[in-house]
Amino acid sequence: MRSKIYLSLVHYPVYNRNRDIVSTSVTNFDIHDISRSCGTYQIKGYRLIVPVEAQKKLTERIVTYWQDGMGGQYNKDRERAFEITNVSESLEETIKEIEEKEGKRPIIITTSARKFTNTIAFKDLSEKIRIDENPYLLLFGTGWGLTDQVMDMSDYILEPIRANTKYNHLSVRSAVAIILDRLLGED
Amino acid sequence: MRSKIYLSLVHYPVYNRNRDIVSTSVTNFDIHDISRSCGTYQIKGYRLIVPVEAQKKLTERIVTYWQDGMGGQYNKDRERAFEITNVSESLEETIKEIEEKEGKRPIIITTSARKFTNTIAFKDLSEKIRIDENPYLLLFGTGWGLTDQVMDMSDYILEPIRANTKYNHLSVRSAVAIILDRLLGED
Repeated sequence: MRSKIYLSLVHYPVYNRNRDIVSTSVTNFDIHDISRSCGTYQIKGYRLIVPVEAQKKLTERIVTYWQDGMGGQYNKDRERAFEITNVSESLEETIKEIEEKEGKRPIIITTSARKFTNTIAFKDLSEKIRIDENPYLLLFGTGWGLTDQVMDMSDYILEPIRANTKYNHLSVRSAVAIILDRLLGED
Repeated sequence: MRSKIYLSLVHYPVYNRNRDIVSTSVTNFDIHDISRSCGTYQIKGYRLIVPVEAQKKLTERIVTYWQDGMGGQYNKDRERAFEITNVSESLEETIKEIEEKEGKRPIIITTSARKFTNTIAFKDLSEKIRIDENPYLLLFGTGWGLTDQVMDMSDYILEPIRANTKYNHLSVRSAVAIILDRLLGED
């Protein structure tokens, strides 16, 4: 059910270009565009996972500006998009928060360009989440992608967006929009 | 056919908050995210319509940096995304460019939250462009949207992305991604 779906943008742990595990910086457009997509598709929550204290504080300030501050007064649609947005310091904290709210540990979904034994098609996941009572958490990586450890703890890996082409260079903001549309498009 | 589809982001003429006709500023993320989406869905061209000379020069400099400069050497995927991107000073110039290249004036498509007599469903437009030999030009507005004059010159108006909900606050970058996926998703 739409009302039990959460989405996270993970800034740690992710790979950099050289496959070191790093924490990436928050991009303002990732806060805005993804909040707006999550709001439009009416999911329950959007969590930016930001472990670096200074980055976390800055992100919280931007979110609060639109939730309670001048931003929301200037643009009511944007205020509404930010209602579901928050910052979290780790993936574990986000899972715990959902578990406490929903009474169940969320089913974790990630995306990958590769095939895994637990790869799931869009159509199948779309049907599943529409009828399932369980909460779901969709994870998106930044940098050069989520670490193997995060992939290993995922219940399902969603098939690639452009399965039949070699070139896929979508921004994470565009990927989030397309995936929400494919899973929750029209009622 | 995918190979005859063009997409433009229009910075003029669009409305501002008070429904004055204005020229908006170019946003760097509109250049990158939309080039990447257009590249991934393999359409023929992406044109940023920017009539203000200083803005046009700046946008051209960014595009060239990724097409021919250091950017492309650093990131080959990004270089490839920018191959189809260019700046144009007006909608008329863009239409003329396509007409000269393709030997036919493009069929113009816009999007709107409202219903028009020439509103077309995603499914119908998707079928049409896959078989049609004509070039197509998909227009996206910035600011508070394309002017009535542009809407009037459009051959078809695409139905809203979220037809069954009241709240739709997608960024133009997300809207472009979802619309390309719905029209050209998988072969």
